[in-house]
Amino acid sequence: MATPPRTIEGWYCLHDLRRLDWAQWHSVPEDEREEIAAEAADFMARCARAEDAPEGSSTWAAVPGHKGDLLFIHFRPELEHLARLEHGFNQLALADFTERTYSFVSVTELSQYVAGEQVTRTDSEGRSPQQTEFVQRRLKPEIPATRYVSFYPMDKRRNQGANWYTLPLEERARMMRSHGQVGAGYKGRVQQIVTGSIGFDDWEWGVTLFANDALPLKKIVQEMRFDEASAIYADFGPFFVGVQMKPEQLREYLLGQWPQADPSA
Amino acid sequence: MATPPRTIEGWYCLHDLRRLDWAQWHSVPEDEREEIAAEAADFMARCARAEDAPEGSSTWAAVPGHKGDLLFIHFRPELEHLARLEHGFNQLALADFTERTYSFVSVTELSQYVAGEQVTRTDSEGRSPQQTEFVQRRLKPEIPATRYVSFYPMDKRRNQGANWYTLPLEERARMMRSHGQVGAGYKGRVQQIVTGSIGFDDWEWGVTLFANDALPLKKIVQEMRFDEASAIYADFGPFFVGVQMKPEQLREYLLGQWPQADPSA
Amino acid sequence: MATPPRTIEGWYCLHDLRRLDWAQWHSVPEDEREEIAAEAADFMARCARAEDAPEGSSTWAAVPGHKGDLLFIHFRPELEHLARLEHGFNQLALADFTERTYSFVSVTELSQYVAGEQVTRTDSEGRSPQQTEFVQRRLKPEIPATRYVSFYPMDKRRNQGANWYTLPLEERARMMRSHGQVGAGYKGRVQQIVTGSIGFDDWEWGVTLFANDALPLKKIVQEMRFDEASAIYADFGPFFVGVQMKPEQLREYLLGQWPQADPSA
Amino acid sequence: MATPPRTIEGWYCLHDLRRLDWAQWHSVPEDEREEIAAEAADFMARCARAEDAPEGSSTWAAVPGHKGDLLFIHFRPELEHLARLEHGFNQLALADFTERTYSFVSVTELSQYVAGEQVTRTDSEGRSPQQTEFVQRRLKPEIPATRYVSFYPMDKRRNQGANWYTLPLEERARMMRSHGQVGAGYKGRVQQIVTGSIGFDDWEWGVTLFANDALPLKKIVQEMRFDEASAIYADFGPFFVGVQMKPEQLREYLLGQWPQADPSA
Amino acid sequence: MATPPRTIEGWYCLHDLRRLDWAQWHSVPEDEREEIAAEAADFMARCARAEDAPEGSSTWAAVPGHKGDLLFIHFRPELEHLARLEHGFNQLALADFTERTYSFVSVTELSQYVAGEQVTRTDSEGRSPQQTEFVQRRLKPEIPATRYVSFYPMDKRRNQGANWYTLPLEERARMMRSHGQVGAGYKGRVQQIVTGSIGFDDWEWGVTLFANDALPLKKIVQEMRFDEASAIYADFGPFFVGVQMKPEQLREYLLGQWPQADPSA
Repeated sequence: MATPPRTIEGWYCLHDLRRLDWAQWHSVPEDEREEIAAEAADFMARCARAEDAPEGSSTWAAVPGHKGDLLFIHFRPELEHLARLEHGFNQLALADFTERTYSFVSVTELSQYVAGEQVTRTDSEGRSPQQTEFVQRRLKPEIPATRYVSFYPMDKRRNQGANWYTLPLEERARMMRSHGQVGAGYKGRVQQIVTGSIGFDDWEWGVTLFANDALPLKKIVQEMRFDEASAIYADFGPFFVGVQMKPEQLREYLLGQWPQADPSA
Repeated sequence: MATPPRTIEGWYCLHDLRRLDWAQWHSVPEDEREEIAAEAADFMARCARAEDAPEGSSTWAAVPGHKGDLLFIHFRPELEHLARLEHGFNQLALADFTERTYSFVSVTELSQYVAGEQVTRTDSEGRSPQQTEFVQRRLKPEIPATRYVSFYPMDKRRNQGANWYTLPLEERARMMRSHGQVGAGYKGRVQQIVTGSIGFDDWEWGVTLFANDALPLKKIVQEMRFDEASAIYADFGPFFVGVQMKPEQLREYLLGQWPQADPSA
Repeated sequence: MATPPRTIEGWYCLHDLRRLDWAQWHSVPEDEREEIAAEAADFMARCARAEDAPEGSSTWAAVPGHKGDLLFIHFRPELEHLARLEHGFNQLALADFTERTYSFVSVTELSQYVAGEQVTRTDSEGRSPQQTEFVQRRLKPEIPATRYVSFYPMDKRRNQGANWYTLPLEERARMMRSHGQVGAGYKGRVQQIVTGSIGFDDWEWGVTLFANDALPLKKIVQEMRFDEASAIYADFGPFFVGVQMKPEQLREYLLGQWPQADPSA
Repeated sequence: MATPPRTIEGWYCLHDLRRLDWAQWHSVPEDEREEIAAEAADFMARCARAEDAPEGSSTWAAVPGHKGDLLFIHFRPELEHLARLEHGFNQLALADFTERTYSFVSVTELSQYVAGEQVTRTDSEGRSPQQTEFVQRRLKPEIPATRYVSFYPMDKRRNQGANWYTLPLEERARMMRSHGQVGAGYKGRVQQIVTGSIGFDDWEWGVTLFANDALPLKKIVQEMRFDEASAIYADFGPFFVGVQMKPEQLREYLLGQWPQADPSA
Repeated sequence: MATPPRTIEGWYCLHDLRRLDWAQWHSVPEDEREEIAAEAADFMARCARAEDAPEGSSTWAAVPGHKGDLLFIHFRPELEHLARLEHGFNQLALADFTERTYSFVSVTELSQYVAGEQVTRTDSEGRSPQQTEFVQRRLKPEIPATRYVSFYPMDKRRNQGANWYTLPLEERARMMRSHGQVGAGYKGRVQQIVTGSIGFDDWEWGVTLFANDALPLKKIVQEMRFDEASAIYADFGPFFVGVQMKPEQLREYLLGQWPQADPSA
């Protein structure tokens, strides 16, 4: 049996993709739509401030295409917070006009591969890995206020001749470091949050990327596809990309206006 | 032909996942919803006491995400009890607001791999395997009253070069023992119920895990993925995770309130 | 090119799985439901007596889980009989409350592998294979009146290194005989009807098993999975299991009562 | 790069499978149903005479099982004819009671493998391949008036060690000739129309078979599965089988009567 | 790690396939349908002129079969333009009669494989790759006004023994040049637009082909399937083919008339 990597985890994460039933929505009188949209935007604003839990963060994005319209992303300290939050969303009048088309349950994860001793050792000042600022920043992520956000789940393969789970730890660490170097080349252009979902959802990890320009979202995944960790060992699930918006812009979006990007963003 | 393991079986098990049609539900007048919710909670309370059969146990969990909202889990002595129980559920007013999104039919199973002679031999006091306390506890499980429950079905592979079903019995037993040792490391944190579903459902086994903290549910599956039995020979189906609740809390849940966890739990 | 086995075929078979829309059903006034249920039960009674064709047999089972509620199984001398029968079912008031979730079109099949000379030679009394009693019993099956029935479709693999269709006939026959010996060990506990569906449906065969206790339905498939024909060469489709009922019990089932098993059965 | 075979193509083909919403259909007053059914039968009669295009042919079949009820098959000189024809069908009142569950867009194809020089050379009388009677008959098919029709799409594999597209032309031609010999053994019992769909639909070919008895539809596909071209190189899609009917019989079928087969057929 | 190819990208692209709910559509009074159809045709006309963005192009096609009826294709300078455009479409009355059945998000891409130095070097006149006319034409495509359009997404394989992403750059370039030569043989008959979707959608590329005759759409894909890049390294998604129409013809199409092809086209 190969040695599993040590990992430390932080906030739980729910990706909640919904398709709007525009036909039903349009059948509602305008003033009622106004109210429903305002209620939903208010709900998202409170989510973004994590008023429903001790801490956390939330955002949403407008997704083009048939997979869904609204991608909600929530980070919370406990898995139950996420379940409760979604249950609360489902009590909104807006929820009755949405169909849940995809979701992903995971938890922010920092592994020994990437963070090395920061995950495994107490530092010189006696702080446990969880207490260091680097780790805190990664495990309790502030959501970057970028124009675009993308998301995809993935697995490492367990095929004959390409089985990630039977490789020695050092081999896996070497590949993940090389993988990380590709990512480092996009510093300032793409920010990523990696979440682990083994035991929670159908794929092993979720990758959520943030960028102000859409092109680097393509370039980084394209370039990474050539490194060993992806080329040989990765299987990818569906990809989603959307335009990130402010909580209160949900109101405009629902009322048929495309929100103006914040000029200061 | 490789030697099949001996197995002994106990209670039959139905996992019944349903999505709530919140839109339709919200269109019902509140007092009617009260009644429907009370009827459903009462039904679940009677299920939990197995009033519909000579013995058994039942629980439910609130599941986040698009796969479903309510995961009902029932154990009963006969497969027909489960069919009848679900038929009874479908007569509830609540059922008319649910869509069945997943289900799994299986039976508690204890195999020679794991339990060795306890499965194959009469003990020194002349008790058959089925009569020993250890076996009884495993085959007629009391459902742990934990905060979280997760479920996933799985197969053993029959691929060229990785065919579980052509391995010698001792080889399979060795791997399953090693697999069991990983599980033993989570004693007190994760409890599992393994059910067999060959001939009943699309996967060969179901694994239902119980834990008070969600993280060990991830950690145990992650660690196990590195042992041979999983890394090389396992295929996994969908994963579900939910917040386990008391039968009567179904009422609150349906009425839009998130039940308070039992402080004594 | 490997030599195909000789096969002889008998009655055509339709497995017709339907989900009941309980919500819609419950919205119908009770006396109307009574009428509809009586009409459907009467239809099934006439099907069971094969009044719609020169000969044949029919049954149904109540299936737990999300895949469907009602599994109808019909055997008839001609494929057109089955098409006409289903068309007739669709004219019933009940059909309007059902969704067709699965079906399988096949024909009873007896192959040279299993039946050897009984399939290939005229016997000493000058009877063609089709005329012998053994063959007649297999190809024009009386449906066993057991408590449980299960069904699954399957394929033989055509993979590199495990290609059933390039093996010599004798090799295939040897494996199928060994497979048959496992089945023989369940004599009196499990009865099976094998139907061929190459050219008719998405899998190559359908296997319908009948048993009074549910456990042997698991045990036989589990044990068979270890013989070469399954371990190396078989791919399995979805599995369905249900409680077999009498035609007239469809009425009670629909009216929300779970039929009492026949004490004499 | 291996040499592609020369192919010549004729009429475009649309397989259009639809499920009838019997519940909605039955909710329509009978005289209205009469009208709608008559309109649809008339439409199909005009399709069968190809009144909507310079030439072509059309038929339909009643399909048992959950995949659909009505399989319409149309051949026309141009792909646009098919698109227009389906658009016309969708304007029928009947279309509003149908759900499109499957379709297949292809074109009749005759390849060098099967037809050899007839596809590649001008004959002794100076006629181009397209002009010979044999080719015309294959590319502009008269639909056989048989009792049964079946359809399935298929691919040739591009797997490691079994890659049809890297084999030498002669090797492929040898296998296709052998494949053709199996088919020749069913002369008079099964007629086939092969259509190519590369670039048009999700599979590479469609095979439509016609027979007066259903059994040869099984026997031919079963026997072919053992020849190299299928056993090693073919992947199959879904299979459909139905009872072919006359255009005007669509009326009876819709009105709940099963059409009587033409005694002269 | 193999060297990724340099690529340059241009306009973002949305393929938006919708199925018309003809039943609902026909239930609308004719004059209202007239208005809705006119509004939609007007919207498409403005899209085709890219009035919603600094530049771009749009078209639509009528698709036969069950996958959808209307394929809208939009090119715009920013991904957000596409999201906003689709959001705008969803505010149309027409949208309420459509179901989104497929979509594809990508960006026009020119790779070093195909364009060589044009992608990697500044030319003799000091123009960057993006500034040359060739590159501009490919990255900001004028949509060819052909009778037919087809679309399919594809991947390059990452299998053992056939892993595109571990091949040396020169090897990949050699194969892509050979692939391009097949395409060159269809010059004047087929025009293609290649878009990259890594990081945006579930497949790595989209291929959109334009032709006045449907046959070359089949012939080119068929021939290409035999070159190494496809035969060994390509996986294909669903294929769609439709009849391209003018923006204003959407009105006729919706009102049940099949638009007359432009005689000058």
